[in-house]
Amino acid sequence: MQQDITFYTNPFSRGGIVHWMLEEVGVPYKVENLAYGDAMKTPDYLAINPMGKVPAIKHGSVVVTEAAAICAYLADAFPEAKLAPPTTERGDYYRWLFFVSGPWEASFGLRSCGIEMTPEQELELGCGRPERVLDVLAAAVRDREFIAGERFSAADVYVGSHIGWGMQFGTIDPRPEFKQYWQRLEQRPAHQRSLQQTEAAMPDFPVPGQ
Amino acid sequence: MQQDITFYTNPFSRGGIVHWMLEEVGVPYKVENLAYGDAMKTPDYLAINPMGKVPAIKHGSVVVTEAAAICAYLADAFPEAKLAPPTTERGDYYRWLFFVSGPWEASFGLRSCGIEMTPEQELELGCGRPERVLDVLAAAVRDREFIAGERFSAADVYVGSHIGWGMQFGTIDPRPEFKQYWQRLEQRPAHQRSLQQTEAAMPDFPVPGQ
Ligand SMILES: N[C@@H](CCC(=O)N[C@@H](CS)C(=O)NCC(=O)O)C(=O)O
Ligand SMILES: N[C@@H](CCC(=O)N[C@@H](CS)C(=O)NCC(=O)O)C(=O)O
Repeated sequence: MQQDITFYTNPFSRGGIVHWMLEEVGVPYKVENLAYGDAMKTPDYLAINPMGKVPAIKHGSVVVTEAAAICAYLADAFPEAKLAPPTTERGDYYRWLFFVSGPWEASFGLRSCGIEMTPEQELELGCGRPERVLDVLAAAVRDREFIAGERFSAADVYVGSHIGWGMQFGTIDPRPEFKQYWQRLEQRPAHQRSLQQTEAAMPDFPVPGQ
Repeated sequence: MQQDITFYTNPFSRGGIVHWMLEEVGVPYKVENLAYGDAMKTPDYLAINPMGKVPAIKHGSVVVTEAAAICAYLADAFPEAKLAPPTTERGDYYRWLFFVSGPWEASFGLRSCGIEMTPEQELELGCGRPERVLDVLAAAVRDREFIAGERFSAADVYVGSHIGWGMQFGTIDPRPEFKQYWQRLEQRPAHQRSLQQTEAAMPDFPVPGQ
């Protein structure tokens, strides 16, 4: 018996990553859009994600938070969708999922807070400078159709979303490697479907910071 | 046929996490200790990890970087060691691996750079304040033997290392939840073996920043 999936998100959030992933998986799910602010800090929602953030999913009795974790979880929970490599071939898969959720997120976070790392900070912090993170990821997607092997996988959903958004919002330069990689992903029907649903929900939710 | 494993590390680094994991897996591996500075920036090593950082492993022809990715990779590559839950039961496993490699690393990184997040920054950054990250992780390990189910797993190696080090170096308070969780892990023979090897290598490597 298939267990119900509830997907907690906001149309202006990292939830877009999970939305795309859910469409790739192709099973039914219920969307709960939450406004920023109080709606994410109710006792009911904090029982789902005590960070008071989206995205999160509930699948039967299993709660998963962290966009990358949700992608990895769904790929494994629904093997028919073939969105994860076999467990014996997951080097690149885990490497790039953790690279983007770790160093990429951290280094752009530091930059958005105005930090220019000193060499000592770069040595100790787990992330390094944004320029280096971008160089490394550009080399990883160069001349490769997908980031973790011959097939499209959950790692492409996660990594691709960050690259696609980065270019869209101007936080990263549209390097040729990024453009080529993103062009292969952007038009996937599952991505387009998730985008349409996200856009349809936007008018009902205030844009953060406006 | 078993493929060779080379483990690139430095005795004063996050490599300790992977060292412990390798001992839990229980297969042979070769340790390459690299000094901080030039030794991590040679063309040969940058071909392994273009971030110029440790840890990294090479397993046959597969290279994996990022401590959390290496833990997840090894658990799957050596299923006999039973260090990952079945793929149908990985909600908590991925959730906490990604939580600590993502928000935990990022929020402590911001704090070490002197950033006190504003409410707007906390909303947008993927991590939130260190205090909240700690509250969430304390609740996750409270009254639970292991972080991802009934059995010890690679997630305990990764999450436990961060908690153990945090308390040792004074970056986190020794809350009772953390102490109890860490006490269950610290004495594991594999952890003790990795510690002995790390300590034996220390005299040959200069301590960063001293
Ligand atoms: N590390 C989390 C980040 C989640 C996150 O920061 N979500 C933001 C929106 S993208 C949020 O819900 N912010 C609301 C708040 O912190 O109040 C992930 O990757 O899923
Ligand atoms: N995100 C990486 C962090 C790796 C990292 O920052 N390693 C440090 C030591 S703990 C390093 O090698 N620094 C040397 C340098 O940046 O030059 C991981 O989790 O493995």
